[in-house]
Amino acid sequence: MSQQPTAAIIVIGNEILSGRTQDTNVAYIGKKLACSGIDLLEVRIIPDSESHIIKTVNEMRHLYTYILTTGGIGATHDDITAACIAKAFGRELIENQDALAIITEYYKGKSHQGQNLFNENRSRMAMMPAGVSLIENPVSKAPGFQIENVFVLAGMPSVMQGMIEHVLPRLQKGDIFYYNTVTSNLLEGTIADKLTDIQNSYPEVAIGSYPFYKVPDIGTSFVIRGQNKIAIRLATEAVIDMVKSFGAVPKVERQI
Amino acid sequence: MSQQPTAAIIVIGNEILSGRTQDTNVAYIGKKLACSGIDLLEVRIIPDSESHIIKTVNEMRHLYTYILTTGGIGATHDDITAACIAKAFGRELIENQDALAIITEYYKGKSHQGQNLFNENRSRMAMMPAGVSLIENPVSKAPGFQIENVFVLAGMPSVMQGMIEHVLPRLQKGDIFYYNTVTSNLLEGTIADKLTDIQNSYPEVAIGSYPFYKVPDIGTSFVIRGQNKIAIRLATEAVIDMVKSFGAVPKVERQI
Repeated sequence: MSQQPTAAIIVIGNEILSGRTQDTNVAYIGKKLACSGIDLLEVRIIPDSESHIIKTVNEMRHLYTYILTTGGIGATHDDITAACIAKAFGRELIENQDALAIITEYYKGKSHQGQNLFNENRSRMAMMPAGVSLIENPVSKAPGFQIENVFVLAGMPSVMQGMIEHVLPRLQKGDIFYYNTVTSNLLEGTIADKLTDIQNSYPEVAIGSYPFYKVPDIGTSFVIRGQNKIAIRLATEAVIDMVKSFGAVPKVERQI
Repeated sequence: MSQQPTAAIIVIGNEILSGRTQDTNVAYIGKKLACSGIDLLEVRIIPDSESHIIKTVNEMRHLYTYILTTGGIGATHDDITAACIAKAFGRELIENQDALAIITEYYKGKSHQGQNLFNENRSRMAMMPAGVSLIENPVSKAPGFQIENVFVLAGMPSVMQGMIEHVLPRLQKGDIFYYNTVTSNLLEGTIADKLTDIQNSYPEVAIGSYPFYKVPDIGTSFVIRGQNKIAIRLATEAVIDMVKSFGAVPKVERQI
């Protein structure tokens, strides 16, 4: 038995909860973790609130192998993630000298439309809990950090996506899940019984049923997911046969 | 002092965690709640797992005024939300006669591409905890339900959007938050000090700072949010003046 690593994401940001910003980081990270065989088991989206952040981090870091946080590590007054993480771990918030060197090196002498890019506020981005390991930011340089099993990343998608490439090599890989997808114009209620039979015949795979309903585009997608490639292939054939048995034409996307 | 109602969303679905499906329901519901003056304070995205659903529902329903769940109320074997909610509340799962009547009435005699639309699987969508109040589904008819302060909705965006209109009238309204947005080509690090001064001068508003970094489109948006319209207007003017003081041109979107 392999011990499958697990993960959770904490999305920090009022702008996600108010609906002002559509989060896309969860789906991006979810796919990346799946490719590493790491089960993403929970996501919590919480406000920029010190007590809420500390409580959530301390509750979750003991529940999952890895915690990834996004958001709140910029240069302004509403960026409180680093300070909250320090409090959650009972560590001091200090100026990380390596981070400061990276930020200074990058911004010194640079300007953007007349703005002098290095100043004291930027050095605020070097304030981190004591004893962290930095996470490289290939986009805008100010790094994220790792503290025990918690990885603190930027919220801006381009920056987060750059950072995650430097996080993945640090994570223990698990058994990878594969999936095939069969799409049809059949309605869920039509096939539910037969689908249950197929699920019962192939307990090693998980068959998900996802209806879509955008007139005139109506039907259901079936996702056959698991770690056993042979079981996935057999179950996929069974789903294809089922779709055909109702006189419908299956559209198949195979990962394996 | 008004008692501000609060809310949380529980998104149920493996397909969101795997990244296969991009959730858009959270942002949609977040905006709707904000318009009713209800603070969305947390979102949890969890898998189609009985124990996880029960634990999450029972933990959260005591923490917030309202809980909305999305996903897992269709006709197939992987739709386990209704049964889990029944267990969370310690109630029996029964065939809701009103729901059954609605589903029977709608599907009887109807067909979609040769499929007979009423069958036993569809009646599965009438299985609900005892003692619920139905939530109308203007799109595909199979209703959601309310049990105490928990509202159980479909995951399919079009259906969820139809249902939410029948949920909102049942919720206690709070004081509405308004916000103005000022966008500039300034970088966060440039303005952080001055922005902190403005925040300190207007403690009644919350000023959020949201950098964007899609070359060549680089800058920061400032969102000035609160319930006191006069304070929002004054703080907005202060942010506009700050942007101009750096020689930049503010782009202003006003809600008030």
